[in-house]
Amino acid sequence: MKRLITLLLVAAPFLATADEGMWTYDNFPSSRVAKKYGFTPTPAWLEQARLASARLAGGCSASFVSEDGLVMTNHHCAHECIEQLSTAQKDFVKDGFYAKTGADEVKCPEIEVNQLLAITDVTARIQKATAGAEGARFTAAFQAEKAALERECQTDASLRCEVVTLYHGGEYGLYRYRRFQDVRLVFAPEFAIAFFGGDPDNFMFPRYDLDVSFLRVYDGGKPAKTPNHFRWSPAGAKAGELTFVSGHPGRTDRLLTIAQLKELRDFSMPDILQRLAEERGLISGFQLLGPEQKRVSTARLFYTENSVKARRGMFDALRDPAFFGQKVKEEEALRARISKDPAKARRYLPAFDAIAKAQARYEQIRRPYTWLEALGGRPRIGGDLFWIARHLVRGGEERAKPDGERLSDYHQSALPALEQELFSAAPVNLDFEKLRLAFWLTKVRELLGADHPAVKKLLGKESPDEIAQHVVDGTQLRDVAARRKLWDGGAAAIAASADPMVALARLSDADARAIRKVYEDEVEAVEKKNQGLIAEARFAAYGRSTYPDATFTLRLSYGQVKGWREGDREIAPFTTFAGGYERATGRDPFALPPSWITARDHVELATPFDFVTTNDIIGGNSGSPVFDKDLQIVGLVFDGNILSLGGDYGFDEAVNRTVAVDSRALIEALSKIYGATRIVDELRGAPSGAPGRAAAATGAQ
Amino acid sequence: MKRLITLLLVAAPFLATADEGMWTYDNFPSSRVAKKYGFTPTPAWLEQARLASARLAGGCSASFVSEDGLVMTNHHCAHECIEQLSTAQKDFVKDGFYAKTGADEVKCPEIEVNQLLAITDVTARIQKATAGAEGARFTAAFQAEKAALERECQTDASLRCEVVTLYHGGEYGLYRYRRFQDVRLVFAPEFAIAFFGGDPDNFMFPRYDLDVSFLRVYDGGKPAKTPNHFRWSPAGAKAGELTFVSGHPGRTDRLLTIAQLKELRDFSMPDILQRLAEERGLISGFQLLGPEQKRVSTARLFYTENSVKARRGMFDALRDPAFFGQKVKEEEALRARISKDPAKARRYLPAFDAIAKAQARYEQIRRPYTWLEALGGRPRIGGDLFWIARHLVRGGEERAKPDGERLSDYHQSALPALEQELFSAAPVNLDFEKLRLAFWLTKVRELLGADHPAVKKLLGKESPDEIAQHVVDGTQLRDVAARRKLWDGGAAAIAASADPMVALARLSDADARAIRKVYEDEVEAVEKKNQGLIAEARFAAYGRSTYPDATFTLRLSYGQVKGWREGDREIAPFTTFAGGYERATGRDPFALPPSWITARDHVELATPFDFVTTNDIIGGNSGSPVFDKDLQIVGLVFDGNILSLGGDYGFDEAVNRTVAVDSRALIEALSKIYGATRIVDELRGAPSGAPGRAAAATGAQ
Repeated sequence: MKRLITLLLVAAPFLATADEGMWTYDNFPSSRVAKKYGFTPTPAWLEQARLASARLAGGCSASFVSEDGLVMTNHHCAHECIEQLSTAQKDFVKDGFYAKTGADEVKCPEIEVNQLLAITDVTARIQKATAGAEGARFTAAFQAEKAALERECQTDASLRCEVVTLYHGGEYGLYRYRRFQDVRLVFAPEFAIAFFGGDPDNFMFPRYDLDVSFLRVYDGGKPAKTPNHFRWSPAGAKAGELTFVSGHPGRTDRLLTIAQLKELRDFSMPDILQRLAEERGLISGFQLLGPEQKRVSTARLFYTENSVKARRGMFDALRDPAFFGQKVKEEEALRARISKDPAKARRYLPAFDAIAKAQARYEQIRRPYTWLEALGGRPRIGGDLFWIARHLVRGGEERAKPDGERLSDYHQSALPALEQELFSAAPVNLDFEKLRLAFWLTKVRELLGADHPAVKKLLGKESPDEIAQHVVDGTQLRDVAARRKLWDGGAAAIAASADPMVALARLSDADARAIRKVYEDEVEAVEKKNQGLIAEARFAAYGRSTYPDATFTLRLSYGQVKGWREGDREIAPFTTFAGGYERATGRDPFALPPSWITARDHVELATPFDFVTTNDIIGGNSGSPVFDKDLQIVGLVFDGNILSLGGDYGFDEAVNRTVAVDSRALIEALSKIYGATRIVDELRGAPSGAPGRAAAATGAQ
Repeated sequence: MKRLITLLLVAAPFLATADEGMWTYDNFPSSRVAKKYGFTPTPAWLEQARLASARLAGGCSASFVSEDGLVMTNHHCAHECIEQLSTAQKDFVKDGFYAKTGADEVKCPEIEVNQLLAITDVTARIQKATAGAEGARFTAAFQAEKAALERECQTDASLRCEVVTLYHGGEYGLYRYRRFQDVRLVFAPEFAIAFFGGDPDNFMFPRYDLDVSFLRVYDGGKPAKTPNHFRWSPAGAKAGELTFVSGHPGRTDRLLTIAQLKELRDFSMPDILQRLAEERGLISGFQLLGPEQKRVSTARLFYTENSVKARRGMFDALRDPAFFGQKVKEEEALRARISKDPAKARRYLPAFDAIAKAQARYEQIRRPYTWLEALGGRPRIGGDLFWIARHLVRGGEERAKPDGERLSDYHQSALPALEQELFSAAPVNLDFEKLRLAFWLTKVRELLGADHPAVKKLLGKESPDEIAQHVVDGTQLRDVAARRKLWDGGAAAIAASADPMVALARLSDADARAIRKVYEDEVEAVEKKNQGLIAEARFAAYGRSTYPDATFTLRLSYGQVKGWREGDREIAPFTTFAGGYERATGRDPFALPPSWITARDHVELATPFDFVTTNDIIGGNSGSPVFDKDLQIVGLVFDGNILSLGGDYGFDEAVNRTVAVDSRALIEALSKIYGATRIVDELRGAPSGAPGRAAAATGAQ
């Protein structure tokens, strides 16, 4: 369990020889790749790779793999959709899914696919708008300019524009995407093989997972044309071969100051782990109620367990004295450099102190901010219906304001994605909603105290269970039409609504907004402004040959197929089908699905299954293509090894590994286990693979 | 949530004015009490207090409150017994319990009461036995001498003797107790009022809990005679009055080195909190299965939630930079003092380094040691039946060895207490056992990895759920006679047993023992030896006017009834019945039981309910009497305030408070709500209160 780390520093002087970096496409170090691997990515090559890459807006990466809109990603990236399309009668998570014809492809209620069309540097505009501003004024000016830039760019609902904060405020990029909201499920294997080894093997290697799913983007009811796509490698990758990964790493914290890292290590991280651990236990207990309860909560349990394991790895890195010591040295080196020049010292050194003070301020508001506001966002702590209600309530109020003055979730540019989720037809399980709402209310009371005014307002004289019961039973928000009516009706409809879930969201909104404002003005704005200064200092010291922390925007990394050494053990880079059959015990999570057991004698057991590379990735890169210098797919990223989890804070080429499914495993399984020849043909560019030409595909069955 | 701490240091020079200290009875600072409060406890007074104090061997404190063996403690200290005596038909936890006559008093299967008869300083013998030894030799020599001392002392099964390590090895005491194993339940109120406010109000004040239960010790089938007991105060306590608390604080860490505190803060504590959080979630989920599942798991849930809240408070203290900074200063001051004398520096300073190295060693074995060995002990991580099986397996092997060579759990002196628990007739719920066993197996696999040899041995090709299912269903260990047969049959019977739970315990035993040995020899022995040296240095620097860290042995603390200031808010020292009625919402955990609702018009609403004092206590003190200088009961300790949780590491008189039930609340409730006049009379020393004279008591109903 102990990490043996020789951390390579982010600072440019040390970077030259390592396969480190999640590079923006507009600053890719082609010459560095040429020097180490003898191949120089050209601008045209980079453009092709960028346009063939895709993002699942909910938090994953993907790639276009045919000219007819076929998208490859992980099973775990589509898990929620597969669960949403299932019923108590037909469980596609358990049994897998294969659309034999184009007509059988089914729409995923909440998946949006993005393709990055262009990057524009808008640093100057943001800096001009925020010049001289601090705190609340900084936030307001930034939000207004961001909204304006996005609005100007997003001329059409088929576009998605986002101002991205890079280098924590050192640079701002305007990212313009093509947006696909009609995304259909084409193929998914059984969960048992997609996630073979389950939580015990998660982040581990050797590994034997077929963590793949295929989706297709549609446009006007027909498969979209995607001329920019990756081709399939006939041969696959071999050890030592140069590999690229293009995808959307979600978040890294490599450029944080020591004060910010200490906050994470000592406060946020252990508390997040406690919350996740309790949620995990609670959902595990809930699953005892029966198979249907288990079915509807498996995606959430997976998400929670995955978060626990990932966060634990990050926490272990932060509390490793050697690892943390390196981070301290790195900051000291930068400060020493700054200190040499009195003008720079005056300009940049106070930024470190300002950020440290913002951490202290954050500690004072961390629990209420977390529990009243932040967890109600993406983590949907009170359940899906509460999340919907909160957005309906806020959306009513916010959309009445000028764009630039709204909370960022309701900027004009953000609405299409939000509306897709708000009006999703995905089924909602009431028992599970009650569990989640009661959990949130219980924790708020526990962590803020029964006598906190916001808690008293929320709970009144009722218990969390009681409230969850009558609010979930009484709400109409399961009905998409009811949501739409409240959304369209705006603030007046919200004020007039007697829906108990809407009432609960109304009740908590003022307190949640108030604490969010404190956070944005007194913590976030201070961090952004001062991190901008530190980024400037870093550019001055080390030049532009660095990469920004991950921001769930498209990045390209390079590396090679390579195992690693753990103590006195050499880990080989490839596994095979044979190894998977050997590891199987017949018991969950080491139980192979029936299709695999049946196929044992027909598959080539020597087929490479999963493999590892030195590419620098992080959570969010799941579903990224691994490709060679000819832009041919050789694998599909689905994980990092356990030692890559410290990658949030720094990259160590000796042990940090990307874990991918081998392209040969995909073809072997699709052909021989699933008979999914329609997909295989399409991947190989054969005409029969295209949708709408169902006869051939069906015939191939 | 933030602590505002002006930590008073443990080092003697700073101690003089604060009500700090959990003093051993053989080193009580009477002159200090006299100076501050004008009362000098005499040796006779101290002996009387000591003999009137009691310990529940399972982890609580208590007191003798009549000459006929009546024992007062908390409801939460007897909760498990009350649950064990309940059935699906009759739930005494929910409804309360009152034995109207002596004949109605029912035996608690697992409670042992101890009365401290004598303390002997055995430091010289232990030091002589361990002189010059290190590591494994130190452990062996220490264990052998400890076993010999205890064996010599424990001349009779009615005695219990324990060698206690004080000052972490600076001093050793031989504690001789009278042991009562026939302990019967006399009275318990409803859980709803014993724990009014539940987890949200736990460790909070103002507070409104009647956290009391009465037990009685029996001897030869009759109530034991206890001439040394506390009398009842007719008037109760008033603000500012001198109060004493005599009880058994479980553990403090005030004398740990900074290296040890850092280990706790950065590694053990956050991981313990994660484990507890997950268990809590899991049990909460399990309770959804139905009322019976809820009933059988409530005591465990209480224990877990209480641990979460207590540990979180401790963790918050450790990660408070101001608090921790004080601890660092304290150690620096001691080291500076040592450094002045070269001879002392040579003798003592290396001890700090040795302890720091032991922490690094501990980090290497912490996860396997925790999960394979430590959690299988008192926390019974795999459930009660697995705990029993492990002791049967080990007991068979260990009892065949000479006393001094056994694992400490099986020393001759330790067997009576162990046997009482092993052969307890308490019911076992199979569903809950399965949940707990599967949880343990799952976590072992998760935290050690599926490929760890011990894990492979334990799980084979089965899943945790599967194993839990067939092992719990298949075991005979629910049957006390079956346990006794295996225990009496020793190693041969164990080897021959086909019981699946015994088989599982056998399977894990070698790995668990091996990692325990590493821990004992390479961590514990090093800590004990070097802490002994540091204690010596501390004595040399500050004299004997300090107290040792808590060790679940009898301590006396002094203080006064006093509220505190939190920010700009003054917290008054007393609450009243009226306040309790006001706080009630009718919903769990703020629902008063029917008896209290009915009695509202009959009770005196101005009756003091709970109150706070400056006495220095910690977990384990639950159930301690609060008494005045005339040895009269004025209250019953049941909690500390939230700011007392940092008390594990240091005492801050400004905010650290003991929380107790007022003696007047006890009398008012017993008389007017429960009609328990038999107990009231006995407390007041009236003859009709004594058991066996049932007519009068029943008549009073």
